[in-house]
Amino acid sequence: MIKVAVLGYGTVGSGVVEVLEKNCKQVAEKAGEELQVGYILDLRDFPGDPYAHKVVHDFQVILQDAEVRIVCEVMGGVGAAYQFTRQALEAGKSVCTSNKELVAKYGAELLEIAREHGCSYLFEASVGGGIPLIRPICNALTAERLLAVTGILNGTTNYILTKMDREGADYGEVLEKAQELGYAERSPEADVEGHDACRKIAILSSLITGKHVDAGQIHTEGITSITPGDFAYARAAGCSIKLLASSRIQEDGSVYACVAPFLVEASHPLAAVNDVFNGVLVTGNMVGDVMFYGPGAGKLPTASAVVADVIDCAKSGGGATPCGWTREAASLGNFSQAEHVFFVRAREADREAVLAAFPVDRLLEAEGGAEDFGFFTKAMEEGTFADQYEKLGNKVLGRIRYLAG
Amino acid sequence: MIKVAVLGYGTVGSGVVEVLEKNCKQVAEKAGEELQVGYILDLRDFPGDPYAHKVVHDFQVILQDAEVRIVCEVMGGVGAAYQFTRQALEAGKSVCTSNKELVAKYGAELLEIAREHGCSYLFEASVGGGIPLIRPICNALTAERLLAVTGILNGTTNYILTKMDREGADYGEVLEKAQELGYAERSPEADVEGHDACRKIAILSSLITGKHVDAGQIHTEGITSITPGDFAYARAAGCSIKLLASSRIQEDGSVYACVAPFLVEASHPLAAVNDVFNGVLVTGNMVGDVMFYGPGAGKLPTASAVVADVIDCAKSGGGATPCGWTREAASLGNFSQAEHVFFVRAREADREAVLAAFPVDRLLEAEGGAEDFGFFTKAMEEGTFADQYEKLGNKVLGRIRYLAG
Repeated sequence: MIKVAVLGYGTVGSGVVEVLEKNCKQVAEKAGEELQVGYILDLRDFPGDPYAHKVVHDFQVILQDAEVRIVCEVMGGVGAAYQFTRQALEAGKSVCTSNKELVAKYGAELLEIAREHGCSYLFEASVGGGIPLIRPICNALTAERLLAVTGILNGTTNYILTKMDREGADYGEVLEKAQELGYAERSPEADVEGHDACRKIAILSSLITGKHVDAGQIHTEGITSITPGDFAYARAAGCSIKLLASSRIQEDGSVYACVAPFLVEASHPLAAVNDVFNGVLVTGNMVGDVMFYGPGAGKLPTASAVVADVIDCAKSGGGATPCGWTREAASLGNFSQAEHVFFVRAREADREAVLAAFPVDRLLEAEGGAEDFGFFTKAMEEGTFADQYEKLGNKVLGRIRYLAG
Repeated sequence: MIKVAVLGYGTVGSGVVEVLEKNCKQVAEKAGEELQVGYILDLRDFPGDPYAHKVVHDFQVILQDAEVRIVCEVMGGVGAAYQFTRQALEAGKSVCTSNKELVAKYGAELLEIAREHGCSYLFEASVGGGIPLIRPICNALTAERLLAVTGILNGTTNYILTKMDREGADYGEVLEKAQELGYAERSPEADVEGHDACRKIAILSSLITGKHVDAGQIHTEGITSITPGDFAYARAAGCSIKLLASSRIQEDGSVYACVAPFLVEASHPLAAVNDVFNGVLVTGNMVGDVMFYGPGAGKLPTASAVVADVIDCAKSGGGATPCGWTREAASLGNFSQAEHVFFVRAREADREAVLAAFPVDRLLEAEGGAEDFGFFTKAMEEGTFADQYEKLGNKVLGRIRYLAG
């Protein structure tokens, strides 16, 4: 029997307890040993909860119990979570987490500490919730030279964009509804400004390059300026609008990463990823594109991924899934040299000036767009586009990058 | 350095050699050791081929070389392939294969032999080609009680159905074109009659239940009787037509498995899986639905999956991925008790008789269907449906099962 400690009895933490309880038979079979919740660390008490007697307020109790070999850090943040994770690993206890902020920031360091202390630091749940994603990338697509990852990694923004598309509604209106339904937080910035997706693509990029990709250096745009007008043009072009997080490995090993809304052609597999679901397309030099799709968040899916990591720790006795992500900094390509096709929307009155500023590929008509017009550019460098965009000032009403099917 | 032997220098075999050569750096890193093609077994010679000097015609040469620790069986069939696999495993050499026919038939036995001789029998490439599927099911979704698998597992039939849908063309016409393009074989029965998908769902069902599911007992229908008229109704119902292979685990551990064409509602993630691509939806009791999508066949994707298995064998020294599939026979549920919703198409002249025979859910109008009509039944047992269907004789023009989104 292995004692597991759960740090944080919130949504994911209570999910971990539920998965361990409800699927105890499957879990024990796969782990080769029974797993039991030994402690739950939380600042609060939970009178009446069947696990109330497991709740402790002091992490040292967990740290000093030699029977606790695996710790689930599902409390979030990069303060106490970082300290506790470090201390657990230094004590030889494996840590499994859903905390993408911590993994993105300190993943390389914590993996190194784990290696030095003969234990594991696993984080399948930190990207794509319940979707098996990190394991397939690290342990299944092993015969590949991985070239790129492109994903819908944030369920909240995907829900908002799906609703805007289906209902023709305003961003603000849909956000409010998503907040009422609990799909968006009261302070939605981390989601809608793209920061959450940015952390996740930083983690995936680090795993693929084997080097540390700094989330702070990734070009990141959110969805707050997407309008119903953009969706009208998207429909006319046979596209959806999706917030994509992507990372492309260059020949020289450097990485172009960005988070931004894209017009995605309907025939592209990511175009069909709707509502709160996530989808991640991984490109290898032999297999081409494979996609992983499923619930990118939610109590039980996320908890299931955490428990799968716990099982790996139990099975391996601490030597689970060594993935090659070192502290060496990855070289990030100069984003201004990345090439994209842009969709541009401008006022009819400025047609001539705007069309003259870009290499135009094709014009686009949209219903209700009498006073404005849209077009796709040819593929062009981000820097060149940005220069022209700036020069035109408020003549350009909006621009969204484009992903063909 | 580990010597790898490749049995069969056909499409997949030459792919395996190509992946090992082109991605030798990645492969060696992941395997922890260099992998080298030691022998290629084929009846033919390949003068001029850079690997011509590796070609042997006698399996005993491979068997007796102690340096060969891993054998890739990519020759197909259940004759010599079975003998060679057995002999290799009995000699303690791990075997990696793409041979679904062999795995479906002898998987449990060969896994047992591998366990007894301290080596591995791996077959990621046997289902879903290059899509990581068996590993996620066996090694990632470990915290789940798996409830069901539903997949588009045959690229040839999916290509044909996609073409019929897009072009309104006849089955025979599209098949002929697919044969010209090499997407369908000259003797297409294994694909179009559903046998290939049946073997694959038998393998997945065996992995999920841990017991041997006999492909011969799975209810299997092909796509040969699907008509452009069916597609007209499908469009009217907002559906695609897909050949689905599915397996559902009952509470008592028994399995309902079948292969048959389904009307799939557009909002279902499998509806967007088109052309030669495969997609597999796995349902767990905690995570809900996750989908794996990608190239289900093809030289390099399939070879990439074989080489990923080779890497696992190399890393583990023969103890790779023990999956719980024993020789015990799985209990297959009585298919006549499985419940489905059916789409039924009949002659306008027989409207009254046909409608009276089924519990009708809703009628369906389709363009160009002036002389016939269609409707969905309520969910009903296969047996009950079959009885009525038989009684009505040629009054019913066609029936296809239905999968909601």
